[in-house]
Amino acid sequence: MQGQTIFFENRPRIVSASAIAGPKECAGVVGQYVDCALTDDTFGEKTFERAERKMLLWAAEKCVEKAGLRPRGVDVFLSGDLLNQIISASFTAREIGIPFLGIYGACSTMSEGYLLGAALVDGGFAENALAVTGSHFSSAERQYRYPLEQGTTRPPQSQWTVTGAGAALIAKDGRGPCLTSATIGKVIDYGVSDVNNMGAAMAPAAADTLLAHFRDTGRDPSYYDLILTGDLGALGSRIVKDLVWEKGTDISANHVDCGEIIYKVIEDEFQGGSGAGCSAVVMNSYIYDKLTGGSGIRKVLFAATGALLSTVSSGQGDTIPCVAHAVAIENGEAENG
Amino acid sequence: MQGQTIFFENRPRIVSASAIAGPKECAGVVGQYVDCALTDDTFGEKTFERAERKMLLWAAEKCVEKAGLRPRGVDVFLSGDLLNQIISASFTAREIGIPFLGIYGACSTMSEGYLLGAALVDGGFAENALAVTGSHFSSAERQYRYPLEQGTTRPPQSQWTVTGAGAALIAKDGRGPCLTSATIGKVIDYGVSDVNNMGAAMAPAAADTLLAHFRDTGRDPSYYDLILTGDLGALGSRIVKDLVWEKGTDISANHVDCGEIIYKVIEDEFQGGSGAGCSAVVMNSYIYDKLTGGSGIRKVLFAATGALLSTVSSGQGDTIPCVAHAVAIENGEAENG
Repeated sequence: MQGQTIFFENRPRIVSASAIAGPKECAGVVGQYVDCALTDDTFGEKTFERAERKMLLWAAEKCVEKAGLRPRGVDVFLSGDLLNQIISASFTAREIGIPFLGIYGACSTMSEGYLLGAALVDGGFAENALAVTGSHFSSAERQYRYPLEQGTTRPPQSQWTVTGAGAALIAKDGRGPCLTSATIGKVIDYGVSDVNNMGAAMAPAAADTLLAHFRDTGRDPSYYDLILTGDLGALGSRIVKDLVWEKGTDISANHVDCGEIIYKVIEDEFQGGSGAGCSAVVMNSYIYDKLTGGSGIRKVLFAATGALLSTVSSGQGDTIPCVAHAVAIENGEAENG
Repeated sequence: MQGQTIFFENRPRIVSASAIAGPKECAGVVGQYVDCALTDDTFGEKTFERAERKMLLWAAEKCVEKAGLRPRGVDVFLSGDLLNQIISASFTAREIGIPFLGIYGACSTMSEGYLLGAALVDGGFAENALAVTGSHFSSAERQYRYPLEQGTTRPPQSQWTVTGAGAALIAKDGRGPCLTSATIGKVIDYGVSDVNNMGAAMAPAAADTLLAHFRDTGRDPSYYDLILTGDLGALGSRIVKDLVWEKGTDISANHVDCGEIIYKVIEDEFQGGSGAGCSAVVMNSYIYDKLTGGSGIRKVLFAATGALLSTVSSGQGDTIPCVAHAVAIENGEAENG
């Protein structure tokens, strides 16, 4: 470990990725890249919670199928989500039957899954690892905020929880972009207590992890074609750029935020998308396609960001601790194995 | 990976362990082994949630101190807990400042932390890893069940959530018992839906993981001096022994359950202890002491067990998915490094 950064010497690969997303999400840039564009965000289920877990399961199974495998051919399943006790992940694990390690990083869960999956594969513990997460606007809204039926007015600094799920299969052998290093985030809290302003709360954690990554690797932001944060939204993206600039690092030329780009902001999405599904869908559809196609994007630093609050901590007057984990994804030429 | 089991070739060691527990817990067997026996379960805090996180932080700091380190000398912090969005772990991570990976396995969190910590150290990614979890009777009761003020009568199959926290520092170098292998559990659900009967719900997951461990390692239960499950309680312990016996494996000679032994059952604890703190406290005080002392206990298979339900999943009519992760802890003679 160099500072907060670990290196994957055997360069595990993301051999397949999949994503599913709701109608509002698919009206935007990810629409043509996801494996399934839902026309009905209930996904045929009676509750939003069941729709959410059905999306996770769908993404997980699709990802395994795209790799030419069956679930029994996968060594370990890493998953978490925003619902209390990560029930979407656990119920998905029950259905898919792969040995399961539950993880929680709120909206940073996708990069935590990449990181731990890569470590388990690179360390020789597993041949492959499936990392999955997702979220649902309606289940998140009623758990974290207000009953939807109440029609609460949303403040302009708020974001919109993405309805969608993404999955990635990380493997020792095969074709696909490599995971070369990962920076484990510290929990950072600048004292933001406004639960409607997650972008501002999370930006310092993103900045801290990005700066740690550049320091630990000796790299400059220009090393990457893309520095992709998770779900800071429009406001949070401006803040993270300012915070790292104050420390002498300029990411403005190649920084993109999944939350900022996922929606055509036309209604109440305001600052853009959020939720564990936000970076999971963008990374595992749109960005994965760019990394594996002829787009010229070959090196991506993916730093999903999470706000680690609960309704109880906020209600008891606590500020919002946040975390970001960064993984370096590089598309090498050769095939492993 | 052999089946569900990974092997740690470099034999990372548990170089220190710590535990803190409440007054009711310390009236039992762990009382003389914990580092701090609380006389007041509020730990001087205004809310039970804050008392819980203070216990986690206390255990974490004590464990690092006992290893002769400071938090900045620890590479990674693995933690989770039972509260929504694992706030006890996240707020502890904020205070201690170590790079943080959030994990969730309900009451199986302690063995998940051991497993992932050992993998990160054994794989050469980290010099050391701190695994911590805990729970608090009063915060769990009001989140999962009823307001304490209501004085609800508890059914006889219920267990009592342990007030306490435990921590372990896993390191490449140093003295202490070795982590030699770990079996990642599958999520198992036999259809139990009674949220007051966690022991019955979790026993099949424990049985599944124990059987997988014996199958994958080619070992017999007699290989271990102790097969320690997490918090099945008295009833669940009987069930797990029956379930593995039905498959031709007899663990009755050396099986002990942390939940079954932690309390002198004199009041409403009925089947014994539960909660993430249950196995965390028993393992990191009483059992760690036996492993490192002259007790004759040198090989322990530690399988903490978790019920992956939420109040929402139960309310929507779902049964209870459960998981257990097993780690083999063996006290070798030599010192690493």
